[in-house]
Amino acid sequence: MKEQFYSYIQNLQDTITSKLEVVDGKAKFQEDLWERAEGGGGRTRVIENGNIFEKGGVNISAVHGELPEVLRKQFGVESGDFFACGLSLVIHPKNPFVPTVHANWRYFEMYDQDGNIVTQWFGGGQDLTPYYLFEEDAVHFHTVCKEACDKHHADFYPKFKETCDSYFWNAHRNEARGLGGLFFDYLKETEEFTMQNRYDFVTEVGNSFLNSYVPIVERRKEIDYTQAHKDWQEVRRGRYVEFNLVHDRGTLFGLKTNGRIESILMSLPPTVQWKYNHHPAQGSEEEKLLEVLAKPKSWV
Amino acid sequence: MKEQFYSYIQNLQDTITSKLEVVDGKAKFQEDLWERAEGGGGRTRVIENGNIFEKGGVNISAVHGELPEVLRKQFGVESGDFFACGLSLVIHPKNPFVPTVHANWRYFEMYDQDGNIVTQWFGGGQDLTPYYLFEEDAVHFHTVCKEACDKHHADFYPKFKETCDSYFWNAHRNEARGLGGLFFDYLKETEEFTMQNRYDFVTEVGNSFLNSYVPIVERRKEIDYTQAHKDWQEVRRGRYVEFNLVHDRGTLFGLKTNGRIESILMSLPPTVQWKYNHHPAQGSEEEKLLEVLAKPKSWV
Repeated sequence: MKEQFYSYIQNLQDTITSKLEVVDGKAKFQEDLWERAEGGGGRTRVIENGNIFEKGGVNISAVHGELPEVLRKQFGVESGDFFACGLSLVIHPKNPFVPTVHANWRYFEMYDQDGNIVTQWFGGGQDLTPYYLFEEDAVHFHTVCKEACDKHHADFYPKFKETCDSYFWNAHRNEARGLGGLFFDYLKETEEFTMQNRYDFVTEVGNSFLNSYVPIVERRKEIDYTQAHKDWQEVRRGRYVEFNLVHDRGTLFGLKTNGRIESILMSLPPTVQWKYNHHPAQGSEEEKLLEVLAKPKSWV
Repeated sequence: MKEQFYSYIQNLQDTITSKLEVVDGKAKFQEDLWERAEGGGGRTRVIENGNIFEKGGVNISAVHGELPEVLRKQFGVESGDFFACGLSLVIHPKNPFVPTVHANWRYFEMYDQDGNIVTQWFGGGQDLTPYYLFEEDAVHFHTVCKEACDKHHADFYPKFKETCDSYFWNAHRNEARGLGGLFFDYLKETEEFTMQNRYDFVTEVGNSFLNSYVPIVERRKEIDYTQAHKDWQEVRRGRYVEFNLVHDRGTLFGLKTNGRIESILMSLPPTVQWKYNHHPAQGSEEEKLLEVLAKPKSWV
């Protein structure tokens, strides 16, 4: 399974970066290969200063070795080896009317002292963070997510949509990071699902990514914007930074287990502002976004 | 003691904000009074878009009530009431040749069920974060810190300087946040020091703040700078954000105990950049700063 999934994300990284380069029309992804001292490594691809994409990363990694202390505590085991691989992407477009997107699909294995698999699971999801609300875009993104889920189980979309809303909750601001999407974790073998079923589902979601996002980019990329729109985008990007550095388990896990810092923090936006006690004008487009972030809603 | 110290920081806030307004010559501090639902409140003063100061806050607060769960765990007690007050300031100048400064002086009391003080202590410090290295400025800042300490005990400066270097270590970047200064905590009554001795020391440090910082501002505020200098300042401000959101105990404590978010996060810089895998040119002024941040050194 690990070879099968790593091969899948290698191909998916190629597919996604090729398509995003075509959409951008100017910038190319810069590739960095890196190795992890304790075992494994990754292939980081970052795009900067494009026509459409101001900054973004589409990274894969496959790491293995002794379970780091943080994970031993989390899983309640005294020792053991692990393997983990995944694709993580964050795209920050230049135009404030084009939303930021994040996605991640990953696979984890843990072994006993004889090297047998003790437990294995998939995790991941994708979520949309706009700076201005276009309901049409939210409906499109969630529809693609739901269609991918519905091919596998009718419960998946409602469950993973709700998990996404809970996870990307910026608790100290009492607001959602964005409009949600899907988030799932610990997809293990059960009576109902084999690991191959899980693989089929996760790759279905991964394959749906470009369809969930690119049509939105195409629809919004030509909208004229002013410095005021850009300022608002940069203020909201501040909330993105706050979520990622204060609450995001993946980021904090990376920072505390000797991950490659520049690959982890590629998720941070290129330019950001923090204004003291900033509130948009009543009835403004900016305020409409805040209203929808205050309470996650159903889009499909 | 609590009335004595709260009265002190009220006056100190007035002294510091008045002087900084004179130095700035344009912007005025905006004052917000706030109350904490569980008891107490604060007086936040923020300056923005000045001639000299792009953003800064000089805040006081005095809060009391039942010990929050986070603190009960930290102190290993099952219940109890507390009182805490302090002054916190962060100043982000516009000119990249003027350093950012942070300071905090605080007092804490904990009570038993009958309302008697079980334990009480002072904490605080001040530290300097430049974007370009002027050794003269580092020496000046540390000299003022040392002189304030030396009036009270010869061990204070070396000890609190080292604690500062350890505390403001941006572990995931393997570099210091800045050039350090003083950091002390849990200054309790001992055989050697009464609480009044502790008060005298902490207020000595607080009184020294303007002398430690304002002469540096005056020396550097007229230096011409380019967009490249400003870009570097904004990239380094990104590290400031990373420290405050990932490592700073005070910030995380505030975020997790229902503090007033806008008062806590006034510490975040006004404009920030994250570039992927950015490294300054060999032999540049920017690289000289990184060299000195890689390993804390003695300045006096």
